[in-house]
Amino acid sequence: MAQASTFRLGLVQMACGDDPAANMARALDLMAEAVRGGAQLICLPELFRSRYFCQREDAALFDLAEAIPGPSTDAVGAFCRAHRVTAVASLFERRAPGLYHNTAVFMGPDGALMGRYRKMHIPDDPQYYEKFYFTPGDLGFKAFDTEVGRVGTLVCWDQWYPEAARLTALQGALLLMYPTAIGWLPQDKAEYGARQRQAWHTIQRSHAIANGVYVAAANRIGWEPSGTGAAGQGIEFWGSSFICSPEGDFLAEAPADREAVLLADIDLTRVERFRRGWPFLRDRRTDAYSGITQRYGDTGKASAGHG
Amino acid sequence: MAQASTFRLGLVQMACGDDPAANMARALDLMAEAVRGGAQLICLPELFRSRYFCQREDAALFDLAEAIPGPSTDAVGAFCRAHRVTAVASLFERRAPGLYHNTAVFMGPDGALMGRYRKMHIPDDPQYYEKFYFTPGDLGFKAFDTEVGRVGTLVCWDQWYPEAARLTALQGALLLMYPTAIGWLPQDKAEYGARQRQAWHTIQRSHAIANGVYVAAANRIGWEPSGTGAAGQGIEFWGSSFICSPEGDFLAEAPADREAVLLADIDLTRVERFRRGWPFLRDRRTDAYSGITQRYGDTGKASAGHG
Repeated sequence: MAQASTFRLGLVQMACGDDPAANMARALDLMAEAVRGGAQLICLPELFRSRYFCQREDAALFDLAEAIPGPSTDAVGAFCRAHRVTAVASLFERRAPGLYHNTAVFMGPDGALMGRYRKMHIPDDPQYYEKFYFTPGDLGFKAFDTEVGRVGTLVCWDQWYPEAARLTALQGALLLMYPTAIGWLPQDKAEYGARQRQAWHTIQRSHAIANGVYVAAANRIGWEPSGTGAAGQGIEFWGSSFICSPEGDFLAEAPADREAVLLADIDLTRVERFRRGWPFLRDRRTDAYSGITQRYGDTGKASAGHG
Repeated sequence: MAQASTFRLGLVQMACGDDPAANMARALDLMAEAVRGGAQLICLPELFRSRYFCQREDAALFDLAEAIPGPSTDAVGAFCRAHRVTAVASLFERRAPGLYHNTAVFMGPDGALMGRYRKMHIPDDPQYYEKFYFTPGDLGFKAFDTEVGRVGTLVCWDQWYPEAARLTALQGALLLMYPTAIGWLPQDKAEYGARQRQAWHTIQRSHAIANGVYVAAANRIGWEPSGTGAAGQGIEFWGSSFICSPEGDFLAEAPADREAVLLADIDLTRVERFRRGWPFLRDRRTDAYSGITQRYGDTGKASAGHG
């Protein structure tokens, strides 16, 4: 089928409660709103089917994981088939007993699972104890040929890594999507909150600019309790989902505190127009980048030839 | 000598005229102003000793190049020795007949040439015909142990490359400086000007965030004629030099249309505080980054293992 050069992207920004079935129903409602707005590709927030359970380490919570394909890909796939759209859904993948991933799936307009990306960079910080739950991805950085064009997904913490965006763009992705679960720790918000969110926007807009691609992030909103459930703890997810152009301009931006469906038209020909004007890919010094594969410059190979 | 953890950085934003001797004198005047403001490390704009001659291709302009060490390192070195400061000076290096580089030198407080970085990424766009003049650098991405700490310099077009910032940070640089010559083409300014400058700020602030380092850019200002000298042509250099924190916040920002000396205190302990809070270096997937050394994902090796 010949592709049009322009399509409409929809992002779902939502609150996630205790009941996975209710979260899935809510996600499908918001996806339907996106479809009514004309969306042909829809991206859901990270791990939308549950609370952000990584606020504590509890082996019982592995029960939230599911096979892929499984019930969630069935539900999202049925929606995609009914509405002839493509969707990116972030799921807690049970790959084998004791082996779990933070995985984003592409569901096609025929309802089929088109492919999966397993989150490559796994954080571990107070109340984001992801290294306990998620084995780092082993599929590398990928682009997917969808009905609307060649696009890629990364997941949350990946968004801080220029390498991840670059490698996905080098695979041909013209749009990078970031299902996300990021927010403020209540004790940090007053002093650092604005700066943290600004940095989160800045780093992702920079991926658009550096690679000449569209970038979109779908975050959750709302306060969720930590393991203790004590007041003044937990995480307040900051929403602020956005879609930006290759120039890094916001095409759509969601509020910090309400659910939202964001829509923007993605013109894939704009990618080439941008890259003709600012031809960064032409001048990459691939002969001098081998140190990127080293942990630090004190590793023998990283400094060889760069004395 | 034991280093203090905090030092004052000074950036010179200046207009550059036709006379190299006058430009050097002006640079030294502005450096003296920075010293009076307490600067211990001073960064000059790209190729401050001349007009931005790359607006046209003219072999006679290779006469502007000079040996390193040479007259300009002598002049800046004498200043550094007299005032006991370190300086980064961007020069047109004549390495051999027919072999020229866009080179930034570090001059130490004893007046000595401490080291050089040769611009690795060379642009070539209308009125920025740098590939005609500059052989791409062959020294790689480097950090330098200066009197005030371990810092790095890159040059202008390098600023669009996350790889360059990452590799310099991995060499241990806690501050990245970008001598720059960037501006608006008059015919573009009204429609694209604000967006272009915003993108320039965004990409550099993102290097601060991604690597947890300070970032500073020293640009020139003023309109300079193109080869034709016709009105409505040339480049209007947009100034807007800045110093930003590891969080990507502006600590100092210069206007777009006036010379300026920017000063900010750089607290090297803040780098580690930032990186403890957002430990991006810990989680880099160095096992999965080899594709960075490829031109594009269709090169055999770039996609191997990442199917």
